[in-house]
Amino acid sequence: MHYLVTGGAGFIGSSLVDRLLSLGHKVTAFDNFSTGLERFVENARKNPNYTLVKGDLLDEGALQAAAKGVDFIFHLAANADVRFGTEHPRKDLEQNTIATFNVLEAARLGGAKGLAFSSTGSVYGEATVIPTPEDAPFPIQTSLYAASKLAGEGMLAAYSEGFGLKTYIFRFVSILGPRYTHGHVYDFYRKLSADPSQLTVLGDGKQRKSYLHIDDCISAMLTVVEKAEDKVNIFNLGTDEYCEIVNSIGWICEEMGVSPTLSYTGGDRGWIGDNPFIYLDTKKVRALGWKPQFTIEQGVRNTLNWLKANDWVYAERG
Amino acid sequence: MHYLVTGGAGFIGSSLVDRLLSLGHKVTAFDNFSTGLERFVENARKNPNYTLVKGDLLDEGALQAAAKGVDFIFHLAANADVRFGTEHPRKDLEQNTIATFNVLEAARLGGAKGLAFSSTGSVYGEATVIPTPEDAPFPIQTSLYAASKLAGEGMLAAYSEGFGLKTYIFRFVSILGPRYTHGHVYDFYRKLSADPSQLTVLGDGKQRKSYLHIDDCISAMLTVVEKAEDKVNIFNLGTDEYCEIVNSIGWICEEMGVSPTLSYTGGDRGWIGDNPFIYLDTKKVRALGWKPQFTIEQGVRNTLNWLKANDWVYAERG
Repeated sequence: MHYLVTGGAGFIGSSLVDRLLSLGHKVTAFDNFSTGLERFVENARKNPNYTLVKGDLLDEGALQAAAKGVDFIFHLAANADVRFGTEHPRKDLEQNTIATFNVLEAARLGGAKGLAFSSTGSVYGEATVIPTPEDAPFPIQTSLYAASKLAGEGMLAAYSEGFGLKTYIFRFVSILGPRYTHGHVYDFYRKLSADPSQLTVLGDGKQRKSYLHIDDCISAMLTVVEKAEDKVNIFNLGTDEYCEIVNSIGWICEEMGVSPTLSYTGGDRGWIGDNPFIYLDTKKVRALGWKPQFTIEQGVRNTLNWLKANDWVYAERG
Repeated sequence: MHYLVTGGAGFIGSSLVDRLLSLGHKVTAFDNFSTGLERFVENARKNPNYTLVKGDLLDEGALQAAAKGVDFIFHLAANADVRFGTEHPRKDLEQNTIATFNVLEAARLGGAKGLAFSSTGSVYGEATVIPTPEDAPFPIQTSLYAASKLAGEGMLAAYSEGFGLKTYIFRFVSILGPRYTHGHVYDFYRKLSADPSQLTVLGDGKQRKSYLHIDDCISAMLTVVEKAEDKVNIFNLGTDEYCEIVNSIGWICEEMGVSPTLSYTGGDRGWIGDNPFIYLDTKKVRALGWKPQFTIEQGVRNTLNWLKANDWVYAERG
């Protein structure tokens, strides 16, 4: 099989590329390196089945050339900057909604049979049913990021109906693990490295979140693409547990051997549009035989240890 | 109050403009006249409270100038060509999704307090709960048109959360009545005028649809904007009944005094992405005190009589 992976030099994309190459597939990675990193594609570059295209998804010509003749597309490129959406509202529209449209057009014109898309558990807004199943009540969006992912989901489904493309939509919780370069573990490790005596936490620290390890995430995506048989396949990906941010801080401090004084900015959420409780129902993906290998605690600890061994990422990513 | 009405020269927009002017408000209509008609704004032009701006929503400068200082925006402009979405997939993205983003930015920059948006009952896809309430299970999109309206809804809600704009989302059934210039009554009247002996019907004629008269639609919108108090206000607008297409054909033939032989293209839907059964639960809007004055039958007959008296629209709209 020949796969195209957009965002193929990023955290999730480069990990997926390595997995697909290890399974003997041909892979084209497409990335504009806005957040992707050269070091993440170093190993892939040594593989003759690998092609790297440096390009932007808003450049339709480059994208369509890269997509021509591929069998399947994983569209993982995105502006994943959930928190600062209101500072640059057009970014989610361009890099997520319009970019996803361009990928769909490239899939249609290039003859791909299927397309998988990284959506987000944030499309459930402030969910009224928890754990939240895929057919939860029609939600109200709370962030430009989630709204742009919802827009992408809708276009994928319409392309399935209109053009026969088989589509796969993954509503992720937060993903962590090796190559993780943004999020609370990343931020807290940097802050505690600079000053182990104190840490300021957004909100009240009681926000409840779920995290999935990258290895489990990739196994789940590949399981769904192999086994799910609907025209439009929508799957929550997460663990069957959640933690409070303060729990995670405890594990991070333990791994670092630090005991900071914690202070809180207050309120029940970290930022405008932050959802104080994200916990997805994952029965649907488990019914396909997948289950995670990492608990949230193991995932946080594994992430921290990767950051400790790879703190060059802070120099490159800031 | 100073209102901006996008699509202000179209079917719904021009009818709303006339109502707002009759209530003594100041109104700016913004329209690119792609489907709007000069004759629909003739009366408004005589009113000193009326300003007409000929412009396109993709022209951000013109839009922001028109929106500057208005109190409230009704964003009704759209590509409403549901049926032919797959022939020009980019049209829904540009004229609905991107245009709606531009209107939101214009609202934010221009200081509007609120924004109302014409979405569609088609966002429920092939609904599993009928009549379909606003909090129906998270739907799967079936047309590029509905997907682009869903994208608009999501952005409106995110702007409410991020920027404090009060938003109103109307999920319409099909609207008909005076100034109606596309849809099955429009098409059938034209075909039967040309050849009263026979009529070809898309699908099996058993598609069940709901229709709302334009006067009732406008009263409903104004009731919601006046009375609904949430940050994001989502309302189905429709009648508490549905008809089969064959029923509607019967009323049309009766009004025209014709008895065509009917033939059917077959299948349970009119086109790819057509939903064979649209029937919305309207308890929420009724709870605000609104109720429709027209039954579906009265609406269809009223529309047909308007078309008979105004068949110049066929020359102008085709």
